Amino acid sequence: MTTPWEYRYAQRTQRMGSSAIRELLKLTALPDMISFAGGLPAPDVFPVDAFQEASNRVLKNSGAQALQYGPTEGYLPLREMIARHTSRYGIQITPNNVLLTSGSQQALDLLGKIFINPGDHILVESPTYLGALQAWNAYGAEYVPVPIDEYGMIPEALEEALRVGPKFIYALPNFQNPSGVTLSLERRHRLLQLAEEHGVPIIEDDPYGQLRYEGEHKPALVVLDGQLHSSHDGLYRGNIIYLSTFSKILAPGIRLAWVIAPPQVIDKLVQAKQGADLHTSTFNQMVAYEVSRGGFLDHHIHTIREVYGARRDTMLQALEQHFPSQVLWTHPEGGLFLWVTLPDWMDAKDAFNIALKRKVAFVPGQPFFPHGEIKNCARLNFSNATPEEIRTGIARLGEVFYEMLETPHSSMEEVLV
Amino acid sequence: MTTPWEYRYAQRTQRMGSSAIRELLKLTALPDMISFAGGLPAPDVFPVDAFQEASNRVLKNSGAQALQYGPTEGYLPLREMIARHTSRYGIQITPNNVLLTSGSQQALDLLGKIFINPGDHILVESPTYLGALQAWNAYGAEYVPVPIDEYGMIPEALEEALRVGPKFIYALPNFQNPSGVTLSLERRHRLLQLAEEHGVPIIEDDPYGQLRYEGEHKPALVVLDGQLHSSHDGLYRGNIIYLSTFSKILAPGIRLAWVIAPPQVIDKLVQAKQGADLHTSTFNQMVAYEVSRGGFLDHHIHTIREVYGARRDTMLQALEQHFPSQVLWTHPEGGLFLWVTLPDWMDAKDAFNIALKRKVAFVPGQPFFPHGEIKNCARLNFSNATPEEIRTGIARLGEVFYEMLETPHSSMEEVLV
Repeated sequence: MTTPWEYRYAQRTQRMGSSAIRELLKLTALPDMISFAGGLPAPDVFPVDAFQEASNRVLKNSGAQALQYGPTEGYLPLREMIARHTSRYGIQITPNNVLLTSGSQQALDLLGKIFINPGDHILVESPTYLGALQAWNAYGAEYVPVPIDEYGMIPEALEEALRVGPKFIYALPNFQNPSGVTLSLERRHRLLQLAEEHGVPIIEDDPYGQLRYEGEHKPALVVLDGQLHSSHDGLYRGNIIYLSTFSKILAPGIRLAWVIAPPQVIDKLVQAKQGADLHTSTFNQMVAYEVSRGGFLDHHIHTIREVYGARRDTMLQALEQHFPSQVLWTHPEGGLFLWVTLPDWMDAKDAFNIALKRKVAFVPGQPFFPHGEIKNCARLNFSNATPEEIRTGIARLGEVFYEMLETPHSSMEEVLV
Repeated sequence: MTTPWEYRYAQRTQRMGSSAIRELLKLTALPDMISFAGGLPAPDVFPVDAFQEASNRVLKNSGAQALQYGPTEGYLPLREMIARHTSRYGIQITPNNVLLTSGSQQALDLLGKIFINPGDHILVESPTYLGALQAWNAYGAEYVPVPIDEYGMIPEALEEALRVGPKFIYALPNFQNPSGVTLSLERRHRLLQLAEEHGVPIIEDDPYGQLRYEGEHKPALVVLDGQLHSSHDGLYRGNIIYLSTFSKILAPGIRLAWVIAPPQVIDKLVQAKQGADLHTSTFNQMVAYEVSRGGFLDHHIHTIREVYGARRDTMLQALEQHFPSQVLWTHPEGGLFLWVTLPDWMDAKDAFNIALKRKVAFVPGQPFFPHGEIKNCARLNFSNATPEEIRTGIARLGEVFYEMLETPHSSMEEVLV
C-alpha cells in the first residue's frame, strides 16, 4: 500500500543527477570481478597499527574531549599542522585560513552552497570530477567545459570560456580525476593570470598532489598565488580556494579533508558547515592528528608512492602488451587514474557491458563530461587492484576491445545481448 | 592588502542566519564561567573505555574495511541494529528504511535540500530547534510558527497553521529543545490525523526520546503512524520522517545519527548525501556498532538517565530556592533543557549580559522563535554542569533577576554599562 499523498520534492531534487554510477559500481562488486572502476586506495597501505595506537592514545589522554562536540572550524592542533605543512611550500598560511571538512566532497557541497545561484556558470575541465558536478547540480549550476590535452586545460579555450563571466573556475591541476593529466607550470601561471584579469576565483582541488611517481613537483596554484599576494599579518588573502584530503594519504574511511582559503571565505564556509553537520568528528580529527604528527605522514606517503607507482607501471606495461593500437591512454605522473580513449565510433558503455561478462570493470567516461557529449572514453583506476589482478584484468579488457574492433558496428547489438 | 575582486556569494548565503549564537557561546567558554548555555552531554557519562575496546576490536579484526570508503546508506549491521531496535516499539522497520547521517544536523540539511523550494512554508513549533532554522534558511524556507504550551503544539493553532499548505511539519515531541515540553499522547494522535487529512508529512526529531526521568514513555509519531499503515513487505511507508542520534546516548564527537523514512524518501536522501559527503565515517559507524551491540546501550542509557535525572532535580530545586516568583519555568520529564519565562518587559539578552559578569551563562530565547518576536525567554541546560555548579550557577542567576526586577526599567542601561 502507498501513502494517501505524494511527497512534493524540491526542484533541485530533479537536478541532483542520476545514480547511474552508483548502480554501475554495485555491478562491479560481484565476486571474481577485477575492478578498475572505483577510486579506492589500496587497503594494503592503510596504517592500521598507527591508527590503533593513535586511537588508544587519544581516548586514554583526551577521551572526554574526543567524544564531545567541537568547534565548527575543526580541531585547532590539526588546523595548525595543516597551516605549517602548507607553509613549507613557500606560502604564508595561518590556522585562520584552514577549515576541516567531512571529506573534500563536503567542501565541494559547501562551496556550492555559498557561491552558486541557480543558472550561475561554473568553468570546469572537460572531463572533470563527477563528484563536483553532483554537488553543484543541486544548486542549479550551469557548466562551461574547457577541453584538456596532456598538459591540462587549453589556455585558448579557457580564455574563450571566461567570456561568459563564470562564478568560479574549478581545476584539478595534479593527476586529474578522471584523466590523470597534470597542468603544466606555464599553464598554471597563465590560469592564475587569466583568473585575476577576469576577477574570477579558482577552486583548486588537489587530493593527489603528494602522490607523484615521476617528474618534478609542480607548485600548487595557491602557492603561486600566495607568492604574488603578500600579506602583512601572515593570512592568505588571494584568489584560490584550495582543497585537499587525508583520504588518499591516510584513509578515506575517516572522512577528513581540509580547505585553505581567504578568511572571509572560511567564515562563510564555517557558517554553511554549521547548518550542514555542525562539525566534523572530533574523534577522527584527533586520531588523524595523532597519526600524522612526528613525521609519520612523510614516511607513509613515501610507502604509498612506491606501491601505487609500481601498480601504475604494471598497468602501463599491460596496456602496451594487451590493448589494440587503435586505443589510446594517458601517462599519469601520479594519482590513481588513467584515461583511455577508444575509437570515435565505440561507446565505452557497450565495452563496459561486455567487460562485465569477462569479469573486469571500469567506469565509462561519459558522466565526467558536464554535457555528456563524449562516449568513447573510460577511466581506469590503478591503486586498488594488485599487480597480478592488473595484468589479468587488462588482458581481459584488451580482448574485449579486440573483439569490438573485429565486430562490424551493425552487429554490436548481438555481442551485447 | 585585499584581492582586486569581490567574492560574489549566492543569495542563500545572506539567509544562512547570523552567527550570533556562535559568538555568544564563545563568551560562555571563559574560565570560571558556569555555563547552562550549550547543549553538551556530560563528559562524565562518555563510555571512554568501551570506545577504546571497540576501536581496538574494529581495527584489529576489520581495519581495512573500517578505513576504506563505504556505502552512502551506512554500515549495514548498524542499519540492521537500528531497524531491530525500532521494531521493538511495535512498528515494522527494515534496514531499507534506515540511513546513517553525520549527526542529525546533516539529516536536517539533506531534508531541506530534497524538500524545500525557496518560499515554501514549513510548520514549526514556536519556539523550535535553532539548528533546523539554520539548516533550512539556506534553502529559502518561510516558517509558520505554531505556539506550544506545556503539552506541546496547541491543536487549534496547528489546524489554523495547516491552512497555508506547508511542505512539512517539523516536530520535536519529546522534551523539546529548547522548551523541554513533551507532546501529550492525545495531541500526538491529533497531529497525525491532521497531517494525514492535509496530506502533509511530518519530520519527527527525537534526539532525547530515551532520556526520560519520570512519567510514562510516549510512543513516537513514527510508531503510532506505522501501526496505522501496515505493509505487506515489512517496509515502513507512512507519513513520518523520523530522526534520532547517538550524540545523546553515546557521544556527539563521533557525529553519528540516523533517519527512518519511507524507502522513496531514503532514496532521495541517499542521492543528496552522496553529493554532500559521500558517506559517514566507516570507522565511526563500525566503532559505534561494536560499542552498542550486546546490550551495552540499554545499560548505558540507564546510567545517563540517573545522572541527568539527578541534575534536572538539582536545577528544579535550585530554581525554587533562588528565582523570584515573577520568573516561570517548565518541568521537563526528560532531555537536556528547561525553559525560563521572564516578566514580559524583561529582555533575556540584557539578563545574559549582566549574568556574564557574574560568571554564569545561558542562551537567550529569541533566536528559537522563527520570527524572533519574543524576547523574555531563556534556555537552561542541566546535563553538562555538575550538581554543585548547578546550585551555584542558579543562585547567581537568581541574583541577576532579582536585581533586574528591583531596577526601574528606565535605569536598565546603567546596569548594563
